[in-house]
Amino acid sequence: MQKSLASNRIIGILGGGQLARMLSLAAAPLGYKTCIYCPEESGPALDVCHSNMVGEYNDETKLKQFADQVDVITYEFENIPSDCIEFLSKLKTVSPNLNSLKTAQDRLVEKDYLNKVGTKTAPYANVSNHHQLDAAITKLGLPAILKTRTMGYDGKGQCLIRTSADIADAYHLIDNNTHGHCILEGFIEFDLEISVIIARNAQNQIAIFDPSQNDHKDQILHKATIPANVSQSTIDRAKKLATDIIIGLDYIGVLAVELFISTKNDEDDIIVNEIAPRVHNSGHWTQDACYVSQFEQHIRSICNLPLGNTARHSNAIMLNLIGNDVNKITEYATMPNASIHLYGKLDIKEGRKMGHVNLTAPLTNQTKP
Amino acid sequence: MQKSLASNRIIGILGGGQLARMLSLAAAPLGYKTCIYCPEESGPALDVCHSNMVGEYNDETKLKQFADQVDVITYEFENIPSDCIEFLSKLKTVSPNLNSLKTAQDRLVEKDYLNKVGTKTAPYANVSNHHQLDAAITKLGLPAILKTRTMGYDGKGQCLIRTSADIADAYHLIDNNTHGHCILEGFIEFDLEISVIIARNAQNQIAIFDPSQNDHKDQILHKATIPANVSQSTIDRAKKLATDIIIGLDYIGVLAVELFISTKNDEDDIIVNEIAPRVHNSGHWTQDACYVSQFEQHIRSICNLPLGNTARHSNAIMLNLIGNDVNKITEYATMPNASIHLYGKLDIKEGRKMGHVNLTAPLTNQTKP
Repeated sequence: MQKSLASNRIIGILGGGQLARMLSLAAAPLGYKTCIYCPEESGPALDVCHSNMVGEYNDETKLKQFADQVDVITYEFENIPSDCIEFLSKLKTVSPNLNSLKTAQDRLVEKDYLNKVGTKTAPYANVSNHHQLDAAITKLGLPAILKTRTMGYDGKGQCLIRTSADIADAYHLIDNNTHGHCILEGFIEFDLEISVIIARNAQNQIAIFDPSQNDHKDQILHKATIPANVSQSTIDRAKKLATDIIIGLDYIGVLAVELFISTKNDEDDIIVNEIAPRVHNSGHWTQDACYVSQFEQHIRSICNLPLGNTARHSNAIMLNLIGNDVNKITEYATMPNASIHLYGKLDIKEGRKMGHVNLTAPLTNQTKP
Repeated sequence: MQKSLASNRIIGILGGGQLARMLSLAAAPLGYKTCIYCPEESGPALDVCHSNMVGEYNDETKLKQFADQVDVITYEFENIPSDCIEFLSKLKTVSPNLNSLKTAQDRLVEKDYLNKVGTKTAPYANVSNHHQLDAAITKLGLPAILKTRTMGYDGKGQCLIRTSADIADAYHLIDNNTHGHCILEGFIEFDLEISVIIARNAQNQIAIFDPSQNDHKDQILHKATIPANVSQSTIDRAKKLATDIIIGLDYIGVLAVELFISTKNDEDDIIVNEIAPRVHNSGHWTQDACYVSQFEQHIRSICNLPLGNTARHSNAIMLNLIGNDVNKITEYATMPNASIHLYGKLDIKEGRKMGHVNLTAPLTNQTKP
């Protein structure tokens, strides 16, 4: 009997959270099955995957078994140990590649790379000890932000130094950073943050969603608004920057690029804040406002399908449901323009991402001239 | 720790095919898990469900275990034995209800019901033996179609009687019908077929998608086009008929109503062909042209959530991928307006539904005046 070419691949995903869940949901309509590898025995992705393996990210025996049963490997977050990806890369294709992961994992390597490809970042300096912090503050001035070079997300591992009175806290961060070195970043004044979700496949085909404008609460993304309140020229420049970044990494998959926009000058100033080598919270709106979501786009990229159409059929606002926000879901369910995306997490914890809603509206020409 | 109200339900689904697959994919974003019950050990729905049970539909021990572990039960096809639904209904809420299933399972009961609620059907007569067929032909005339009262789908269990020369074949169908009696339906002349996908929840909230225009090949749905090429008045009348039908059954869930439209007279003639107590192939276009798909709508209905918004953001053509059609998928993957929905079936068989694609286009006012 003839076999369908379309349905014979298993995608291995490292990580079992909501991003892996939504990747699994997007993989199925393309005919792919997913196998989730993570240390937890339950979790958002395990409700919707074809199969799973419970294992630590440094368990090479299990990782080998995992690689044996999948056709291609990806990951849902950048804090996977790079040794794990290096090991798996010898067995199967892993996308995004190891170099992209290592670049995104380390704020210093990341900023060096971003400047190398000609994008602008905040001024920065490597800080490994108190003395280097003092020197970096002298060089960059205050206010400035000390961050751990690795393992930071959603505002964790950061210390804002407004005045010299805050330096003691910064010393404390250096002394207690179990993940190695820190980086001091000069304070950037900006008017708004946008992010660009870009994808690339092995044929060097590139597709870019319209940037969202992002608002944070307690250093966690609260709201993404599309279209962003920036000019078409700024959108075009942002997309060009993201293109340079993704090509320079020989990157396969969806990449998120966070940008700070300062509107003071005639031409908006664009500064790259950071990149995330994965589908991203600020791209969740694509599920309900575009013909292809960022999740399907990532699956298409890593399976080397042609990339999908990033055009919008609607405008959108994405609202994260953090902690108790999830209890508003009965209200959102009554709203005709609210699309609900829950992650299947039973226990509500403060700061925990429980789900999101996409509020859609018909397209209007809201882009600034 | 506080529990999320939103994520604590398990939906039991009888049947493991593509409709159960797409119901499972739609249940997850609403925070629900699915448990699939079917005799097969693998199948489209089993790739994306939270859990499954392998069992026959008459195995009351296993059905009881199934009912024990789910919160609400639904089914993906109307050929589930009604005894199974009757048994389960004593243990858990089953939607759509037993009476709706029984009505849709038997073409005679169905037509009696449709006429009772004031909708028009083809003329028909019960046929249990050769003599009754002769009498029915005398009454209804030729051409006419003899159909098994139960277990027919996609043109199976039917015999078109054009002239008296075809009566021998019809006798043969009566003699070999293992499912009981037949029904003779008078031949209806019509210009096009449309279907209405309607949903109702326990609060008697009703929501209706725009009707699709359906084209068949080899008696299997080939194409659904939205908007249908009928007037707004006909659309409104079709929606009203569907509303009468769903209310009369005290029906919970998504119901498909197939309608034949004859455009010869000043006002279109609308005849109800049949109803299907489930999500329906002719409603697959909703996945990519509406804010809420028929699958999400069914989940919302049976979980007694408010019904979703049935408005379209796009026009659409749904094309089924039957048998070898699935090999066109690489071509569809390159088309910016094609959304792919594969069912994860590996073996290609003639006539087997392997997937579908939705071709979308921006909204235009194509409705006839």
